[in-house]
Amino acid sequence: MEATPIAKNVVVRKIARAETPAVEALGQYGVATVHEAQGRIGLLAAYMRPIYPGTSLAGTAVTVLVPPGDNWMIHVAIEVCRPGDVLVVAPSSPCSDGYFGDLLATSLRAHGVKALVIDAGVRDVATLTEMKFPVWSKAIWAQGTVKASLGSVNVPVICAGQRVEPGDVVVADDDGVVVVSRNDAPAVAKAAAQRIAAEEEKRKRLAAGELGLDLYDMRAKLAALGLEYR
Amino acid sequence: MEATPIAKNVVVRKIARAETPAVEALGQYGVATVHEAQGRIGLLAAYMRPIYPGTSLAGTAVTVLVPPGDNWMIHVAIEVCRPGDVLVVAPSSPCSDGYFGDLLATSLRAHGVKALVIDAGVRDVATLTEMKFPVWSKAIWAQGTVKASLGSVNVPVICAGQRVEPGDVVVADDDGVVVVSRNDAPAVAKAAAQRIAAEEEKRKRLAAGELGLDLYDMRAKLAALGLEYR
Amino acid sequence: MEATPIAKNVVVRKIARAETPAVEALGQYGVATVHEAQGRIGLLAAYMRPIYPGTSLAGTAVTVLVPPGDNWMIHVAIEVCRPGDVLVVAPSSPCSDGYFGDLLATSLRAHGVKALVIDAGVRDVATLTEMKFPVWSKAIWAQGTVKASLGSVNVPVICAGQRVEPGDVVVADDDGVVVVSRNDAPAVAKAAAQRIAAEEEKRKRLAAGELGLDLYDMRAKLAALGLEYR
Amino acid sequence: MEATPIAKNVVVRKIARAETPAVEALGQYGVATVHEAQGRIGLLAAYMRPIYPGTSLAGTAVTVLVPPGDNWMIHVAIEVCRPGDVLVVAPSSPCSDGYFGDLLATSLRAHGVKALVIDAGVRDVATLTEMKFPVWSKAIWAQGTVKASLGSVNVPVICAGQRVEPGDVVVADDDGVVVVSRNDAPAVAKAAAQRIAAEEEKRKRLAAGELGLDLYDMRAKLAALGLEYR
Amino acid sequence: MEATPIAKNVVVRKIARAETPAVEALGQYGVATVHEAQGRIGLLAAYMRPIYPGTSLAGTAVTVLVPPGDNWMIHVAIEVCRPGDVLVVAPSSPCSDGYFGDLLATSLRAHGVKALVIDAGVRDVATLTEMKFPVWSKAIWAQGTVKASLGSVNVPVICAGQRVEPGDVVVADDDGVVVVSRNDAPAVAKAAAQRIAAEEEKRKRLAAGELGLDLYDMRAKLAALGLEYR
Amino acid sequence: MEATPIAKNVVVRKIARAETPAVEALGQYGVATVHEAQGRIGLLAAYMRPIYPGTSLAGTAVTVLVPPGDNWMIHVAIEVCRPGDVLVVAPSSPCSDGYFGDLLATSLRAHGVKALVIDAGVRDVATLTEMKFPVWSKAIWAQGTVKASLGSVNVPVICAGQRVEPGDVVVADDDGVVVVSRNDAPAVAKAAAQRIAAEEEKRKRLAAGELGLDLYDMRAKLAALGLEYR
Repeated sequence: MEATPIAKNVVVRKIARAETPAVEALGQYGVATVHEAQGRIGLLAAYMRPIYPGTSLAGTAVTVLVPPGDNWMIHVAIEVCRPGDVLVVAPSSPCSDGYFGDLLATSLRAHGVKALVIDAGVRDVATLTEMKFPVWSKAIWAQGTVKASLGSVNVPVICAGQRVEPGDVVVADDDGVVVVSRNDAPAVAKAAAQRIAAEEEKRKRLAAGELGLDLYDMRAKLAALGLEYR
Repeated sequence: MEATPIAKNVVVRKIARAETPAVEALGQYGVATVHEAQGRIGLLAAYMRPIYPGTSLAGTAVTVLVPPGDNWMIHVAIEVCRPGDVLVVAPSSPCSDGYFGDLLATSLRAHGVKALVIDAGVRDVATLTEMKFPVWSKAIWAQGTVKASLGSVNVPVICAGQRVEPGDVVVADDDGVVVVSRNDAPAVAKAAAQRIAAEEEKRKRLAAGELGLDLYDMRAKLAALGLEYR
Repeated sequence: MEATPIAKNVVVRKIARAETPAVEALGQYGVATVHEAQGRIGLLAAYMRPIYPGTSLAGTAVTVLVPPGDNWMIHVAIEVCRPGDVLVVAPSSPCSDGYFGDLLATSLRAHGVKALVIDAGVRDVATLTEMKFPVWSKAIWAQGTVKASLGSVNVPVICAGQRVEPGDVVVADDDGVVVVSRNDAPAVAKAAAQRIAAEEEKRKRLAAGELGLDLYDMRAKLAALGLEYR
Repeated sequence: MEATPIAKNVVVRKIARAETPAVEALGQYGVATVHEAQGRIGLLAAYMRPIYPGTSLAGTAVTVLVPPGDNWMIHVAIEVCRPGDVLVVAPSSPCSDGYFGDLLATSLRAHGVKALVIDAGVRDVATLTEMKFPVWSKAIWAQGTVKASLGSVNVPVICAGQRVEPGDVVVADDDGVVVVSRNDAPAVAKAAAQRIAAEEEKRKRLAAGELGLDLYDMRAKLAALGLEYR
Repeated sequence: MEATPIAKNVVVRKIARAETPAVEALGQYGVATVHEAQGRIGLLAAYMRPIYPGTSLAGTAVTVLVPPGDNWMIHVAIEVCRPGDVLVVAPSSPCSDGYFGDLLATSLRAHGVKALVIDAGVRDVATLTEMKFPVWSKAIWAQGTVKASLGSVNVPVICAGQRVEPGDVVVADDDGVVVVSRNDAPAVAKAAAQRIAAEEEKRKRLAAGELGLDLYDMRAKLAALGLEYR
Repeated sequence: MEATPIAKNVVVRKIARAETPAVEALGQYGVATVHEAQGRIGLLAAYMRPIYPGTSLAGTAVTVLVPPGDNWMIHVAIEVCRPGDVLVVAPSSPCSDGYFGDLLATSLRAHGVKALVIDAGVRDVATLTEMKFPVWSKAIWAQGTVKASLGSVNVPVICAGQRVEPGDVVVADDDGVVVVSRNDAPAVAKAAAQRIAAEEEKRKRLAAGELGLDLYDMRAKLAALGLEYR
């Protein structure tokens, strides 16, 4: 079969972004809570790991679809970023090359971008760690990329198994990365706040030695299903 | 953090399906051609393999979101299938268990379903091969599943890295699986037909020994980029 | 830290084997049925695949613990094999080398051994396929092994994630490999026979178009859990 | 084939545990030394990693067999734990979901449990790190689990490729996890102590520049095998 | 860090090839024998698999270094191929895209090229199987590639973990792929012939039931190392 | 097929090493810069990771080819090491065993060796971290190795996908490991110095908010390829 270049590469300049109060709230709750609060959807694959531990944040997605081994569109994307954004990069086929290093991080920071989420590799991680520029990636690898083929900016992408639309909220911490649909953000933030409040009481009771079996009233249900104690 | 059950499990009974002529046409062209014809999108991950070689087909997607290790919703889905459908099953977290065997295949066949595409495992593959019931899966494994938790039928799912919506066209052959959006199906079928026609001429010229370098007029462009012959 | 050679390498000549009628019965039912019939235990990992499709068998395990990249103990094991045995080989650390080829298969066959199950690699697969000597393995690879270090024969081993004791029944087909404890074999064979009988009736009803939802009486339970139809 | 629910789920309340002096001794020697001292058996797979570096400990195993994506039995297990135990969790099929978070850790700590070893995923790792609750796991992932199906507590399990029986000693540090059979614990502790003593002298000689070739008297054996110097 | 395009892309037109008699001889012996005969070197990684079983061949390597997701250089390479060559394609970073399909196979066949060995993906495998054009690859996947960046032809490459120089002999069968250095080919062919002859006698003795323990005189050595029979 | 021991195990005592000024210079620039400066070759696979973060160094390679699960040749290699060397260990087939621990590190340090690069596993990592002995490895695992079979020292090896010759420069940091050919070292060091100088200016301009699109003059080229802004 003969191959042809990919059609229709576009850059969408103006996107609707989730509203700041919801984004800020989600950033406080962390990935596991937000994932639960929205009914267990939107979690990126387990191989997405932070390059250094201890960061927790949320931002609005600017999405970038890149060819394998080609980081040109990241340069293109920076121009349409705004303070508070998180760059979300997805390759059109699986790739672990080092698409991103300290110069791009310097440029993103200059435009107020908070972090990078990339379903591929990054490099210069010692410098990125020093700069405290947070990255969640599939790999750490120095392999260079070219600037030869086009991709797209601010189109829906599938990143590490989840669909991310431009303007969605991306929440990331040591547990991984979760995406919240732009329109759902306020409702999810509210549900997450309720979970946090409910957990505080439970944490105290569990710390005092009460069993989950009693706290969650599980004994009858276990018996009904036939669990046998010996 | 405390866990909570997944909310909002639904079965959508009526879905719009791609129209039959487009589905039938796409089934003749095969995965690689269709993938190219629609601009290189929609291809499921490379680990999706047929359980036996030699089948090529297309059908309309009935989608099933299943919990890990729980195949209950496949039984639910069969009721809403129609002749010509392909069942597309995606687990809510990665799983290789054997969700599907010869009894479910017998039931699907009785309702006219053409094939199964599952981002998980299947079993009874010797019988499925004998029955000539085609399956594309991530794994072959006898591991049993339970019927304890709900999922959903005919919601958008992400299956092996691609978003599949109910009613989309699923094309599958020995090269893998590609999904075509319901509305794009006629246009993609047309583009695919054009590709096939164009290739016939090229195949003849290549078979006669003409080089792709000349056929595609590549020499000047290679020289411009600095390719050096020694 | 300094390393020391592994202690206590033994060859156990006489082992108790599962009785022939149970082994023969289990060989008729296949892996998925046997795995179900014994309560879903004993299934080897999904990466254990037959080198060619279409074989289904059962035999009694002679177990071999081998060092990585060293197949010496397979030669030792053959002497203690009897007709009807299946050789089960587990490396002491993960390895994909080709421990086994056509000469060893010739020798095993001369002693009545039915098959090989190996959590490592094999080679000469074209010849093995011609000879119809069945093998389930983790890999196919020509990489040679040495004969320099000892292992053990007929000790309990963990093979592809399951504990196998000498004399246990090994059942293998296109779905993978399952081990049945020697003492459980008659009871599991009986339970498997019952499952097969029960399925025949269900297969007919499903083939006639009856839904699993009705056949298994699932509708009320689904409703109770909150499944919503739209 | 039709699937059926797993039979015979049990919780064993009373188990025999390895004796405290042996457990405490093993906790001082670390994984590599203990693994060597018991003849190189019992080491869990290399993918079992600590969620933060720098911890070394030993405890007695309370084992939990869990369905994929279902953490209910962890709640059940806590009731039968005692101070000094380590919870060992094995899924019945491979799973990377986040079975465990900070609330369960709070509860385990309240009952004196020292650590978790889980052949699956965990979440809330930032909080677990802050709490200094040690975990060795296959994955870090926020993916939530349900409470719908039974498993068992204090039955023998295969965890990351090794059989663990209730009451066995689990030793874990930055090199991974090793299990020592309950009855062997005193003898292994003694052998480990001897290794540590023997190594101290060797470390000094190596630090002074003496070669292992001379210290271990290897030259003649290498020559006999035909090693050629150029 | 900033990225720059790869320097120095070359096509070497004239290469020295291994001589035909040695290539033809090696093609008769198969991968495992040749790998052994040359002292167990040169074997490509175990993930290199034939797209259909039953082929065994040898040819002279024309090497192609390709960028990830870019198959342009394969077109360039065909011009420098001669009858009896095998095309060996290595990507500069790991990639599973479908670099190769039936049109390229048609072109290669027109120039007498016997097979493709590619450390990446291929597509149109149903047609390739029908054409009986042999391919050993890392993956089967329809993912398309572009023609945007240069690589090199007939430079040394590392393909699936082994260095291949232009003109080397590539031997491939169902066990995988092995490379023989151009200059070593006659000597390796001779050593392989001796192995085959020596094996015939052993095969007969093993088939007659003689044990490897006796045939290879292993008993004394096993006893000396301390193997204990019980 | 019958296996035979690997032929021709050698230790090459005297090797030519890259000259110290070039090695020292390369050690300052780091992996990504050196990889770029030499035209994007020589990078080891992405799975090679440091056992602790924050080290950056370069040294001259002493290479060791080891059998799977056998670390004997590491002892042999130490005798031929000199201050400033880096030990590069490659197994002859894939292996994750713990070939190396604190005693070997003590010995290497006594002979001035700076670091270990090993395409396999290491253990005693807590002690190695305390000692600040840097290691880049494929795995961390306590699994012990034997001393039973020979390998070679100071022959060319393929380590994590790259050919390393004795005396080559090995550069390693948090981004991975790159090898520079002995003879190319001075030229690559010079090219790397130029890159670093050129980047400083760019970093300032990017930090001030200038876009890469303008800095690298990309807009016309993007437009020519058809990138569409919306």
